[in-house]
Amino acid sequence: MTISTIGRRIRLGLIGGGPGSIIGETHRIAARLDGHYDIVAGALSSDPERARQAALKLGIAHERAYPSWQQMIETEAAQPDRIDVVAVMTPNDSHHAICMMALDKGFHVICDKPLANDLAQAREIAARVEATNAEFCVTYCYSGFPMVRQARDMVRAGELGEIRQVHLQYVQSYLAAHDLPAGWRTEAGRAGRSLVLMDIGTHAFHLGAYVTGLDVTRVCADVGSAIPGRTIDDYVSALLRYENGARGSLWVTNAAAGSEHGLSFRIHGDKGGLEWHQEEPNRLIHRRHDGFEQIITRRLGAAMSEGAQRSTRIAIGHPEGYLEAFANLYTEFAERVAGRISKGERDDRRALFPGVRDGVKGLAFVDASVKSMAAGAWQDVERA
Amino acid sequence: MTISTIGRRIRLGLIGGGPGSIIGETHRIAARLDGHYDIVAGALSSDPERARQAALKLGIAHERAYPSWQQMIETEAAQPDRIDVVAVMTPNDSHHAICMMALDKGFHVICDKPLANDLAQAREIAARVEATNAEFCVTYCYSGFPMVRQARDMVRAGELGEIRQVHLQYVQSYLAAHDLPAGWRTEAGRAGRSLVLMDIGTHAFHLGAYVTGLDVTRVCADVGSAIPGRTIDDYVSALLRYENGARGSLWVTNAAAGSEHGLSFRIHGDKGGLEWHQEEPNRLIHRRHDGFEQIITRRLGAAMSEGAQRSTRIAIGHPEGYLEAFANLYTEFAERVAGRISKGERDDRRALFPGVRDGVKGLAFVDASVKSMAAGAWQDVERA
Amino acid sequence: MTISTIGRRIRLGLIGGGPGSIIGETHRIAARLDGHYDIVAGALSSDPERARQAALKLGIAHERAYPSWQQMIETEAAQPDRIDVVAVMTPNDSHHAICMMALDKGFHVICDKPLANDLAQAREIAARVEATNAEFCVTYCYSGFPMVRQARDMVRAGELGEIRQVHLQYVQSYLAAHDLPAGWRTEAGRAGRSLVLMDIGTHAFHLGAYVTGLDVTRVCADVGSAIPGRTIDDYVSALLRYENGARGSLWVTNAAAGSEHGLSFRIHGDKGGLEWHQEEPNRLIHRRHDGFEQIITRRLGAAMSEGAQRSTRIAIGHPEGYLEAFANLYTEFAERVAGRISKGERDDRRALFPGVRDGVKGLAFVDASVKSMAAGAWQDVERA
Amino acid sequence: MTISTIGRRIRLGLIGGGPGSIIGETHRIAARLDGHYDIVAGALSSDPERARQAALKLGIAHERAYPSWQQMIETEAAQPDRIDVVAVMTPNDSHHAICMMALDKGFHVICDKPLANDLAQAREIAARVEATNAEFCVTYCYSGFPMVRQARDMVRAGELGEIRQVHLQYVQSYLAAHDLPAGWRTEAGRAGRSLVLMDIGTHAFHLGAYVTGLDVTRVCADVGSAIPGRTIDDYVSALLRYENGARGSLWVTNAAAGSEHGLSFRIHGDKGGLEWHQEEPNRLIHRRHDGFEQIITRRLGAAMSEGAQRSTRIAIGHPEGYLEAFANLYTEFAERVAGRISKGERDDRRALFPGVRDGVKGLAFVDASVKSMAAGAWQDVERA
Repeated sequence: MTISTIGRRIRLGLIGGGPGSIIGETHRIAARLDGHYDIVAGALSSDPERARQAALKLGIAHERAYPSWQQMIETEAAQPDRIDVVAVMTPNDSHHAICMMALDKGFHVICDKPLANDLAQAREIAARVEATNAEFCVTYCYSGFPMVRQARDMVRAGELGEIRQVHLQYVQSYLAAHDLPAGWRTEAGRAGRSLVLMDIGTHAFHLGAYVTGLDVTRVCADVGSAIPGRTIDDYVSALLRYENGARGSLWVTNAAAGSEHGLSFRIHGDKGGLEWHQEEPNRLIHRRHDGFEQIITRRLGAAMSEGAQRSTRIAIGHPEGYLEAFANLYTEFAERVAGRISKGERDDRRALFPGVRDGVKGLAFVDASVKSMAAGAWQDVERA
Repeated sequence: MTISTIGRRIRLGLIGGGPGSIIGETHRIAARLDGHYDIVAGALSSDPERARQAALKLGIAHERAYPSWQQMIETEAAQPDRIDVVAVMTPNDSHHAICMMALDKGFHVICDKPLANDLAQAREIAARVEATNAEFCVTYCYSGFPMVRQARDMVRAGELGEIRQVHLQYVQSYLAAHDLPAGWRTEAGRAGRSLVLMDIGTHAFHLGAYVTGLDVTRVCADVGSAIPGRTIDDYVSALLRYENGARGSLWVTNAAAGSEHGLSFRIHGDKGGLEWHQEEPNRLIHRRHDGFEQIITRRLGAAMSEGAQRSTRIAIGHPEGYLEAFANLYTEFAERVAGRISKGERDDRRALFPGVRDGVKGLAFVDASVKSMAAGAWQDVERA
Repeated sequence: MTISTIGRRIRLGLIGGGPGSIIGETHRIAARLDGHYDIVAGALSSDPERARQAALKLGIAHERAYPSWQQMIETEAAQPDRIDVVAVMTPNDSHHAICMMALDKGFHVICDKPLANDLAQAREIAARVEATNAEFCVTYCYSGFPMVRQARDMVRAGELGEIRQVHLQYVQSYLAAHDLPAGWRTEAGRAGRSLVLMDIGTHAFHLGAYVTGLDVTRVCADVGSAIPGRTIDDYVSALLRYENGARGSLWVTNAAAGSEHGLSFRIHGDKGGLEWHQEEPNRLIHRRHDGFEQIITRRLGAAMSEGAQRSTRIAIGHPEGYLEAFANLYTEFAERVAGRISKGERDDRRALFPGVRDGVKGLAFVDASVKSMAAGAWQDVERA
Repeated sequence: MTISTIGRRIRLGLIGGGPGSIIGETHRIAARLDGHYDIVAGALSSDPERARQAALKLGIAHERAYPSWQQMIETEAAQPDRIDVVAVMTPNDSHHAICMMALDKGFHVICDKPLANDLAQAREIAARVEATNAEFCVTYCYSGFPMVRQARDMVRAGELGEIRQVHLQYVQSYLAAHDLPAGWRTEAGRAGRSLVLMDIGTHAFHLGAYVTGLDVTRVCADVGSAIPGRTIDDYVSALLRYENGARGSLWVTNAAAGSEHGLSFRIHGDKGGLEWHQEEPNRLIHRRHDGFEQIITRRLGAAMSEGAQRSTRIAIGHPEGYLEAFANLYTEFAERVAGRISKGERDDRRALFPGVRDGVKGLAFVDASVKSMAAGAWQDVERA
């Protein structure tokens, strides 16, 4: 990755991600890594005092350590050196309200996934993004890995031929014990209609679409709980049909005892297949139909794709990880926003970070899967 | 594996497996490996002259190099030193007739999978086995791997707790090119109602049942072709429900360009999970819910299960493969038949080789999957 | 890793790492990642104008964008808000002069490896560190990986028993082509007496010592070039004897065509062995003598060692990489320096980052290896 | 592997490999696998009664179940249907006497490694082989793996360019416990001058020579015991120089607690490198200097080398193992002997099985290594 010079540093305001939040520190590291952002404002908790203390601890100035996100958006909107970007890392059920207000006040927005708590909310946010002409990123963070971009570029370049099969997995264990862990995710309704689909199903679904460039048009899903006696969904296995006729499957669970992360894709086209596992992210397995299997990595003797090269920071052989992938989205968003600031217009170079429409698609998939389960039959997926 | 002494060597007659047959040489190596069989008769081809030439080449005596399987069964039945076992390695559509006649003439039978061309035929064979009190083995050969037996023993010993998820894959590429290869498999009707299900789907299905000891009761399947413009099925993805309520999935295809063999299972119970890949058969991944992941192999410092130990021939660290797994079924069948010969009664030790009822179950699964596809809905699997 | 609060942020001045330097950006990311440093001064190039431009690009203030490192140290020493730490990322042959002056002016120092260009220089730096009571870190960065610390903790806890064998590898390819790449490394003398030993041999050597807590006392080395016709060393293979009698070997080369990074260790004690590969850094293979092989990773059901837990930032299953390992050294150094600032005394908690004495040991090993090669015999390694 | 027709079956007489011998059953399976041998005579133990009982159990006729190897060779030499081949699988210290007598009586010989107990004995056997014009195979069994032959063929075809580095490992644990296991290997003198070198060192050494086609000319070895307080060698680490100037290393031990088998090679030439591990024998890692890493396996879309294709029996994706590799040597030897029988002359097609000269080289390497250790310096390896 060329060390970009993007004019001035982007001023960032944080919403959520306070004490005890894992995703909060992840967003902050992502913002810091390449030095493109200054974290200058924050409303880090729904508790006003905790919010202020957490902000001060991060070195945010006293007057911009806000007690609530509403006050942050309201006050910042009126500042001469107002923040450029609002980053949202709160529970799912607050995304809609925060995004709508931030957009209305003219901020660009980085929002954690899933975009909203249901499809209708997601559509409203997307409409507001269009109306306000704001920049918007949904942090489907796994799309930031260099080898995911390598796979995407290879598909686009036709190196796999027509895509015929797409198989997606995300296999975790954090709900495998009978007692559910505490937290907003397991409180009724806060995570949306189906915890497993909202929480990690949307990640796997997006990964398939991101790499292949294809949308799922129909789904037949088995959604429920692998662990008896609970009402929260912890398991989904689904049959997929993509817009070009390709077949696929998805297995996503957070109740497979003993598993770690387990996000992976395996796709096959006429000319071969690709397989990638998030737990070993720097290797992309390329099974060529005419040739030996090859392991795509950063190497001296063979070039990665342009998108992959733009997404890596270090010399060959040195592993990169999740934080760098997450930081890629932040850095690409910074470049986009900097372009808007300096030139007043959108850079026409294709963005690699996922946008609001990708967020809507995720909710449409959740919606169709839940309906399919209820009907015991295939279901169309609404177009975003 | 203790070098067993089973009394006298078993006399084996071969049906099918002549020139050009891969599975034929596999059966013969399996019969030779441990020295329990003498291959003394054969009808190796449907072409009388080729049949005789192939038998002679194997060192079979002139008078027992038969021109047809009917003649072999008929003639052998009348010999004083008649064969003990008929081994059937012909195309699917002839299994039923051969097995029925062999059973009627009092032979024990080893039959390649799938047991028959449809469920009705399979049920007839099973009834005849019961009526004749013969020994019968269906060569679901992957059940012969030591680590498959290790997994099965661990499940039975409760080391995984209650089984919650079963995921099965078998991903090949030999039908990935647009032009179908020649051979009986791709001739209309000869491989049964669905090539992919009959040919390799039954293997994956059996592996899941063999390891977990659980039957599939319902299935929702997406069966068809991944490659457009062909009528032969080369793809199935299915949602499964097991008898204890466990959920599962199955992805089986012979049209994933670039793949090799790709048979694997991944199962999860309350206490952890197991994963096995046929391409690296000597390792069983054990993901414990309370502990680190461990790799089960033959080792000095840790004991494999009794079933696994009985299934391995060589010192630790030396890899075993497909032929040894296949040979395990032959050797276990030899021990069983030898017991019948010497004692006139069935050894009550649990057999590890798959029997005729496992063969019926495979056809019941194929039947239900095809019906599910037609209905676009879940379908009950008939009990064997 | 607990997000530490270390009082005020540490003020950092950079020497070297200007345009085109890979290691420079690595140091800067490492400094930014956890938000403990402000990069406030820099002399990034030996060319005054390039030095200033590079500093400005990083957002360093005009008056602290220095044209030379001498001027930076001199000027900063007199500032009321003077930098706390000097970070040195220049070619090997300048480390000695820079470190000596920085120490003399009362700065703490982070210096890239190898510490100096020869053993005598290294000893002088170590003596000056003692005399000035400064904090000093040598960025043997691979010691920052969580699984390296896990291994170290396991050895210390006796989980491997007495260490009997230590095998180290570092296998790269960047000098495998016949034409040497340009740069200071391949200019006569600038990289010290033996390029391969100085450049990557010291990393592998340190890793062995860091994990086992044992020093090498004797070495018999084959040092030279794998590629004929060059005078620069690109290969070393060595027999090692550790202070407790353990035997070992080391294979380090940057001329193994087709390789990537290839840093690994494999150690064995009475109770089992550990193996780690930098290219898959989040897995530590533990071969227990009494038990199955286990794969140590961050998991829900099993605890990593205290040192490993302190060295990781994100949730299980998410891979971490080289930049996070490097950042661990920076963050630990920040904690140490902050302790000095706030309490005026050294925190007595054992530091995990490598210090100046580790740097001296590296040069002692290089020295002994070169002498062994000349003598064609075993050679004692001088004590640091 | 084409199912060869080699005229009549070869008559085999076994010496050694009786009750409790692992290698004995391995040889017998190897002889049975492809159906080219009839095991018709045997002297399976040094105890006359055990020898006879063991032979009878294998189905050997009463009159050819010999009480001693001397009697077997003597008696068989006078039979009209005398055995063609003597297979020797006794402790090292008896190889010389058995081979000399068998050769003198005109038999072809398959002898387990190491060829003899010291270099002088080995040279005598080699001279006798030449004098008698017999066929001779030393079962360096790992040379029978298809991927080892693939590597050898690739080196010969120049796909790696000039070989620059050869690194060999064989890392076991069976002597890792302080108490030595009972058996002839650990009795003084019976295993030759250095247990680890004789027992497994010769295997690793041969593998390097077999793949590269290069001989080691100089060695500097660290030979001894990793476990204190024993006189038996369980560890060797050595620096190697090959005849073309290539550098290398060898690490061989049977005292690395927790290890399994651990035989591997890694070689690098100008154009790239190859790596192979016996524990995953069906994959050959090919690191190309100009291209991505590729995994060489049997595949539909890419051809293996001629030597590899001749060495495999089954369809792609199905793993082969140690027994098949061992059987390859037996089958190739059967083809050679059959050629001698039918045509009276040696087939001029290059044999893939190791011969007597390879056996001599192994002992020459052991000899030089032991001398190097005593001298603490490099030592020339005598030419075979």
